[in-house]
Amino acid sequence: MSFPVVGVVGGGQLARMLAPAAIALGVRLRVLATDPGESAAQVVPDVVLGSHTDLGALRRFAAGCDVVTFDHEHVPPSHLRALEADGIAVRPGAGALIHAQDKGVMRHRLAALGLPCPRWRLVRTPAELADFARELAGPVVVKTVRGGYDGKGVLVYTGEAAQAGEAASWCAAAASRGQALLAEERVAFTRELAVLVARSPSGQAAVWPVVETVQVDGICREVYAPAPGLRPERATAAQRIALDIAGALDVVGVLAVEMFDTPGGAVVNELAMRPHNSGHWSIDGAVTSQFEQHLRAVLDLPLGSPRAVAPYAVMVNILGGDYPDLYPAYRHVLARDPGIKVHVYGKDVKPGRKIGHVTAIGADLQDLRERARHAAGYLRGEITT
Amino acid sequence: MSFPVVGVVGGGQLARMLAPAAIALGVRLRVLATDPGESAAQVVPDVVLGSHTDLGALRRFAAGCDVVTFDHEHVPPSHLRALEADGIAVRPGAGALIHAQDKGVMRHRLAALGLPCPRWRLVRTPAELADFARELAGPVVVKTVRGGYDGKGVLVYTGEAAQAGEAASWCAAAASRGQALLAEERVAFTRELAVLVARSPSGQAAVWPVVETVQVDGICREVYAPAPGLRPERATAAQRIALDIAGALDVVGVLAVEMFDTPGGAVVNELAMRPHNSGHWSIDGAVTSQFEQHLRAVLDLPLGSPRAVAPYAVMVNILGGDYPDLYPAYRHVLARDPGIKVHVYGKDVKPGRKIGHVTAIGADLQDLRERARHAAGYLRGEITT
Repeated sequence: MSFPVVGVVGGGQLARMLAPAAIALGVRLRVLATDPGESAAQVVPDVVLGSHTDLGALRRFAAGCDVVTFDHEHVPPSHLRALEADGIAVRPGAGALIHAQDKGVMRHRLAALGLPCPRWRLVRTPAELADFARELAGPVVVKTVRGGYDGKGVLVYTGEAAQAGEAASWCAAAASRGQALLAEERVAFTRELAVLVARSPSGQAAVWPVVETVQVDGICREVYAPAPGLRPERATAAQRIALDIAGALDVVGVLAVEMFDTPGGAVVNELAMRPHNSGHWSIDGAVTSQFEQHLRAVLDLPLGSPRAVAPYAVMVNILGGDYPDLYPAYRHVLARDPGIKVHVYGKDVKPGRKIGHVTAIGADLQDLRERARHAAGYLRGEITT
Repeated sequence: MSFPVVGVVGGGQLARMLAPAAIALGVRLRVLATDPGESAAQVVPDVVLGSHTDLGALRRFAAGCDVVTFDHEHVPPSHLRALEADGIAVRPGAGALIHAQDKGVMRHRLAALGLPCPRWRLVRTPAELADFARELAGPVVVKTVRGGYDGKGVLVYTGEAAQAGEAASWCAAAASRGQALLAEERVAFTRELAVLVARSPSGQAAVWPVVETVQVDGICREVYAPAPGLRPERATAAQRIALDIAGALDVVGVLAVEMFDTPGGAVVNELAMRPHNSGHWSIDGAVTSQFEQHLRAVLDLPLGSPRAVAPYAVMVNILGGDYPDLYPAYRHVLARDPGIKVHVYGKDVKPGRKIGHVTAIGADLQDLRERARHAAGYLRGEITT
């Protein structure tokens, strides 16, 4: 076997950030993008244009790839199974990926595995939702089982009469898609954590240090690696949960397990089966980045060391601001701080859109946080000095 | 100004390794390559096919680039001046680059600057060469002033009668190109060092730690960063030489100064004005790699920190061996050592050809050296266990 071709479905920033790792590894990338201007399509020579919802396009794209993997979870499960039936090496496979595509399937499976989850129920009617809220005696987080991300597709339901109409319309919308809604207790967490693990088809797995994530309005804003002050036994327990999930679900590639940290221990919130925002720090902060590791994992190459290269890494997302031309602010940020790593995704600036990220590594967490926040804030236009 | 386009003349591994840095920075690359299968042309979407000796091709390539820089020093100086006359931002400029293209010009200039050089003379006849050898009372290193690299274009002349014919033919060949030969004393060095510095058009400069290089048959085999046991005042003096050269010659981009370490201090051997083999360690071992820094410098962006992220980095080149398919050995090497970073260049394997490199970072120099050597040796086929 010679150096292989990895096909990536989706042309977003995750596919883009696979490219530097692929270049170093000598692995060739092919990207399925819907537009030649997409983030990854700008930087990869081998781009197939087409939709991830078009099985014909997926098949044309997959022909000639040694393995197929993903920038996102939006390929219809039936298409994934069709590709597998064609003999394509789909990694992660359809049987694993469904747990990142359908939150109902995910909760059923994790509960069966005895892993810590919030109290949850699949509900179909306003009455079922109201019943569950009464049982919990507290607010309910209602999620669409498929298609939600970055805080989209989430309703906090308190059981008050004023929400009756909204609850009814959510139930009706889900029913029209043939779906239930996932209702979960709102966990009284002290902070949010994420554990990234990579697993290969032959079963080798590697886990990065547990990180703390800071979300605002459902969007990841900051990541601290490792999670400051997390006791070693708690960190090990959280890593074990992620490794158990990866093994039990036969995940191949990077698995991100988002968790709530509570006084009683970590509780699983959501899963993603691809490189994840909570792992961007690893590009500059670890011996093996999540992007390199994802490629190694899907190719069944031996995995690399997930060891951190500095005591702390802080990653802050750059969200789009009001100025469409990022370059003047970018020059300023690089001049102010020679140690900061700015990653831009080649995306048009739109308010609130993830257009890049900043990482700082070193020993002084407060200093790193101040510097990374300043750079990201300046690039958004929130800070002007 | 929006995110710029950097044109790179040459499609070798140095251009290829600029690509990951460009992707993170959001900078677009265009490569002038002679063949679509060249190392960089495999991984960059915007490739112009043509020769660096063809001014028409250079002009077509340069149109639409914000700046033009280089993978190698082989563009004829007259073409560089023509591009500059067209208004192209050529970086480094023709006036600086000539010092990396012509060893005679380089020696004249460094001598005028009072920088430490071996004793040298430009010679045109066997008699002049013999005279210089008698003066030195030792062997003479004879070099073509233009076009030599990796040990090619070097003759060690001892003044013995048996070498008379060879000396005559070297002089005649140089004369046919209208050139003299550079004759230098063979320096009794204890080891070889290299200092990499980056400089921007506005005069900002940044210097990496001084490294030790190990050459075999004129080809760089290993690099240790920083140079083990080099006294701080010696390291500072070597860095100052490189910074002085960069400033005096108005270098833009990365400048590599190869030096001989002698009991009396560092002596300048050769210059390169581009990312250099002695700086490959910086991809995995420094906050800012030489490739990122080169892009920042040629774009007059603020420079990044050249700080190392580990006490030591060891880089060992992978030379081609007898097996054309590298992939099985690659799998083995990754499995043996999860902490090793293997970089492959996408080049066909030919015996002795640089086809990749391996870097290891950490605190134990001996351990790093053993690991990086083993990986590179295994990939070459010299080690089979």
